[in-house]
Amino acid sequence: MSDDAAAGIMEATYRALCEHGYADLTMQRIADESDCSKAALHYHYDTKEALLRSFLDFLLERFETEIAGADAVDPRERLDAFLDVIFESEESEGTAFATALLEIKAQAPYDEAYRDRLLEWDRAMRGVVAEAVRDGVERGAFREVDPESVARFVATTINGAHVREVALNEDMAATRDLLEAYLDRTLAPGDPDSPGESPV
Amino acid sequence: MSDDAAAGIMEATYRALCEHGYADLTMQRIADESDCSKAALHYHYDTKEALLRSFLDFLLERFETEIAGADAVDPRERLDAFLDVIFESEESEGTAFATALLEIKAQAPYDEAYRDRLLEWDRAMRGVVAEAVRDGVERGAFREVDPESVARFVATTINGAHVREVALNEDMAATRDLLEAYLDRTLAPGDPDSPGESPV
Repeated sequence: MSDDAAAGIMEATYRALCEHGYADLTMQRIADESDCSKAALHYHYDTKEALLRSFLDFLLERFETEIAGADAVDPRERLDAFLDVIFESEESEGTAFATALLEIKAQAPYDEAYRDRLLEWDRAMRGVVAEAVRDGVERGAFREVDPESVARFVATTINGAHVREVALNEDMAATRDLLEAYLDRTLAPGDPDSPGESPV
Repeated sequence: MSDDAAAGIMEATYRALCEHGYADLTMQRIADESDCSKAALHYHYDTKEALLRSFLDFLLERFETEIAGADAVDPRERLDAFLDVIFESEESEGTAFATALLEIKAQAPYDEAYRDRLLEWDRAMRGVVAEAVRDGVERGAFREVDPESVARFVATTINGAHVREVALNEDMAATRDLLEAYLDRTLAPGDPDSPGESPV
């Protein structure tokens, strides 16, 4: 399959997920959104689940490309660029896609291959945050925090914002503001009341 | 219907959700877990969705009862008791129930009545946290934070821990530790570098 054809199927999967959600997604509905016949889709992907595994790989690659494009030197700017990628893509994709993605997350206990990809995505997110924090600590721009703990906390908050958008129809921008304030306080150097502490 | 019968149906719904998940839940499967026939269930609840709305009410009431039982006077102890209720019930219920609950959250965009109950539950959670924080600020035990912002951040983190348990098979205790450290830092009084600030 050419790269263009593969990308076309991924875009079609995205549209079909937004239109029908995960539970009502079928190969026919993905084919309907693409230039492929259902038979051609089945030639490349045995099942809907196999196609969705590739789709999760595609999302992870896209995230990594977007992050790589945001190559600020300053650690705090890198964190802001990371939050831009996360929150702006969520915003442009809208609630329909966020809902489909939450349905897929709820399938992870039944599908090891979904879980592996979600774990990889989470590691990538946490990796970006931890690296920027570590760099900031080393340069003395941030206080002596544990980069892995901060990264895990940030990832958990982003996961929470996602579920709140879907379940409660809450604007993710509300969480972004709270998260920025948390980072400002947590990373601010030279807090005299916490020498040598490893806060999160 | 007697209170006992209603409670029996709620317990049966809980077991059926753990056993089959949300998508494969049927009135027959709930009846199989209870002392009722499927016909008797249908007499009280028109549809599976109607029964699940009552089930969400039941969970909310149970949460409110558990919280009311934890009536510590000290604001920090009240926050710890709240975290006990949240994290210990999640732990005792296990991943099967957490998964079913996440599936229900992913249904909220399609079911206004689910969403209303999830919003009510969220308001109850945030209310407990905000009240304890407000009380602590008034007594001078906590610094001058915005209680609503802290409560929203705590709720978001708990939502994130829930999705991580399901999607990533992550132990919720990891999030609890991070959340306690966050509260310790955020609420600690007398930080000289932030007079009059409203951190979250």
